[in-house]
Amino acid sequence: MGSKQSVGIVEPKTAVLGDLRLDNGSVLSPTVVAYETYGTLSPNKDNAILICHALSGDAHAAGFHSDGEKRPGWWDEYIGPGKAFDTNQYFVISSNVIGGCKGSSGPMSINPVSGKPYGSSFPFVSIKDMVAAQKLLVESFGIQRLLCVAGGSMGGMQALQWSISYPDALENCIILASSPEHSAMQIAFNEVGRQAILSDPNWNNGLYEDNATPRKGLALARMMGHITYLSDHKMREKFGRNPPRGNLLNSDSDFAVGSYLIYQGESFVDRFDANSYIYVTKALDHFSLGKGQELTKALSPAQCRFLVVSYSSDWLYPPSQSREIVKSLEASDKRVFYVELTTNEGHDSFLLPNQRQEDVIRGFLNMPVNE
Amino acid sequence: MGSKQSVGIVEPKTAVLGDLRLDNGSVLSPTVVAYETYGTLSPNKDNAILICHALSGDAHAAGFHSDGEKRPGWWDEYIGPGKAFDTNQYFVISSNVIGGCKGSSGPMSINPVSGKPYGSSFPFVSIKDMVAAQKLLVESFGIQRLLCVAGGSMGGMQALQWSISYPDALENCIILASSPEHSAMQIAFNEVGRQAILSDPNWNNGLYEDNATPRKGLALARMMGHITYLSDHKMREKFGRNPPRGNLLNSDSDFAVGSYLIYQGESFVDRFDANSYIYVTKALDHFSLGKGQELTKALSPAQCRFLVVSYSSDWLYPPSQSREIVKSLEASDKRVFYVELTTNEGHDSFLLPNQRQEDVIRGFLNMPVNE
Repeated sequence: MGSKQSVGIVEPKTAVLGDLRLDNGSVLSPTVVAYETYGTLSPNKDNAILICHALSGDAHAAGFHSDGEKRPGWWDEYIGPGKAFDTNQYFVISSNVIGGCKGSSGPMSINPVSGKPYGSSFPFVSIKDMVAAQKLLVESFGIQRLLCVAGGSMGGMQALQWSISYPDALENCIILASSPEHSAMQIAFNEVGRQAILSDPNWNNGLYEDNATPRKGLALARMMGHITYLSDHKMREKFGRNPPRGNLLNSDSDFAVGSYLIYQGESFVDRFDANSYIYVTKALDHFSLGKGQELTKALSPAQCRFLVVSYSSDWLYPPSQSREIVKSLEASDKRVFYVELTTNEGHDSFLLPNQRQEDVIRGFLNMPVNE
Repeated sequence: MGSKQSVGIVEPKTAVLGDLRLDNGSVLSPTVVAYETYGTLSPNKDNAILICHALSGDAHAAGFHSDGEKRPGWWDEYIGPGKAFDTNQYFVISSNVIGGCKGSSGPMSINPVSGKPYGSSFPFVSIKDMVAAQKLLVESFGIQRLLCVAGGSMGGMQALQWSISYPDALENCIILASSPEHSAMQIAFNEVGRQAILSDPNWNNGLYEDNATPRKGLALARMMGHITYLSDHKMREKFGRNPPRGNLLNSDSDFAVGSYLIYQGESFVDRFDANSYIYVTKALDHFSLGKGQELTKALSPAQCRFLVVSYSSDWLYPPSQSREIVKSLEASDKRVFYVELTTNEGHDSFLLPNQRQEDVIRGFLNMPVNE
């Protein structure tokens, strides 16, 4: 393998696409999708890989928007020249989900009738709808068939949905740290997050103004979510029982782990919208391909090859949920590879540097397609 | 074993005890402790067992306060004639912790200077302070030595603290589903609960009025706590992905598990004080006997016999924390029995009916003391 490089400076783009009839019957018109691309589309348009993001992600998956940007895109570790998704070989597309708040159609979009953001009057968006919007984007490039759709967590749900919504339109599917449906406990954590937002006096039924958003509720939701993305081991390693650093009098917590969570909550509020948090977590909770025979039947239209990866320390999306997917794919004779990686970082593992994960993705993509 | 019976109607009592110098230097004067007793104290006062409650518990551990009361005390399953803590043999004492809100000295106590509740001006209370107040109560009965101190979760921390604060004053110690100190993850969950209360507009730095308490924040804290007390298995069994029962339009959640949590949060607010929630969770988080050699040293003064019980499905206080206690007790040659019970109910297991837990407690108490 060659040396790994950054994709460098990338330009955020926006596509204004056609109408989209949503799962709930509403029509999105137009469908706006924020996206970025890395690498070059081949003349016969057969080297495109679509990357799907998780709950709080966005289209900015790799590189930098400017020289001054401190951190690269969220999956820069895996996308770039010489990296697992090698932009010397592949044309990588990354887009923001609809229902989100990073440039695609969502509650923050302006309602042309009122001239104000839709807020909670934006229609409910499902994982299937997010994928349908991505399909419009992919078609706008003239791409009929993707080499691969890949994602972790909610991104894995989207990848899985791609395989059955558009069986002809992808050759490979990579599903990391994901699930065919949320368990009661996964729903429960999201529910408390939503309740925190609904309890905020600024909530105003989702019709809050720009200068009075439900910041405190959203920060609480993020704090709680953040605990579930880490492992006990990772937290111990990172914080132990240490007191907060810096000026104790200025801290709202007696412990470093507490002040870290408070910081995570507060900085999240500056970059995420409370309505989108509700929309996207509801999309997650309502996504359900069933289990056992029901799941096998749901997955039967798929024609692509699958790579499913789980992480030993992920207690939020435990390996057992990935194995459900694998079992059902095998039951209907799909081509599927499964790897459980031993990690200490909990659900966030798929986002973090991991040579083994890199090798597994690269190996899967390089393998002759009939294997 | 004989047939199990209820202790019947019990009378809540309050003891006004002497001054207590707290860990933080303040003096509690007087020390008020709410308590109940079940069974009869033997003439030579050698059959008394002290029961210690968990975070949201109270002195009402067994029986009923009136004929009309719907549910008996919180550990009625284990306390009564013919039960594990057999009131035909033992005199059982159960008291509310100081810092709590169920009759013992705490933030809801009236500050004689202002004529109003102390609220957040009540002094910080540690697990050691809670135990010191219990010692005053036990002495008020003329009891020099308890046959046993027993508790689960925070109650287990109190039992452990008893064994080293007053090594001469107890013969046996039962520690269920507990820990020698909170991990970063345990602290993190409590921290988010506290932040939820602090974010409530009614919080007013803990000096809220009776008619405007931080209800929403406390309800959120409870909802989140509640998730951590159950197991994924138990939640799936109880709710699965079912929609809420009853009128969907009146529900704030799309899922049964959500409406259950909302109900748990709301009903908790009616019976618990937000300041106490903060005080008691802080006592939990600050309790630290260390680990490894440090823990062994901390436990070295203990002279009693120990029973330590953990629960396979308890991911909040995992069996590894109980084994830490056992390992350190064994390292300094204490008499200790350890049982890991296989259960599906998560952290709440110790509160629930379990024949095996009953047998283990009964067997431990009946065993000749030198075994």
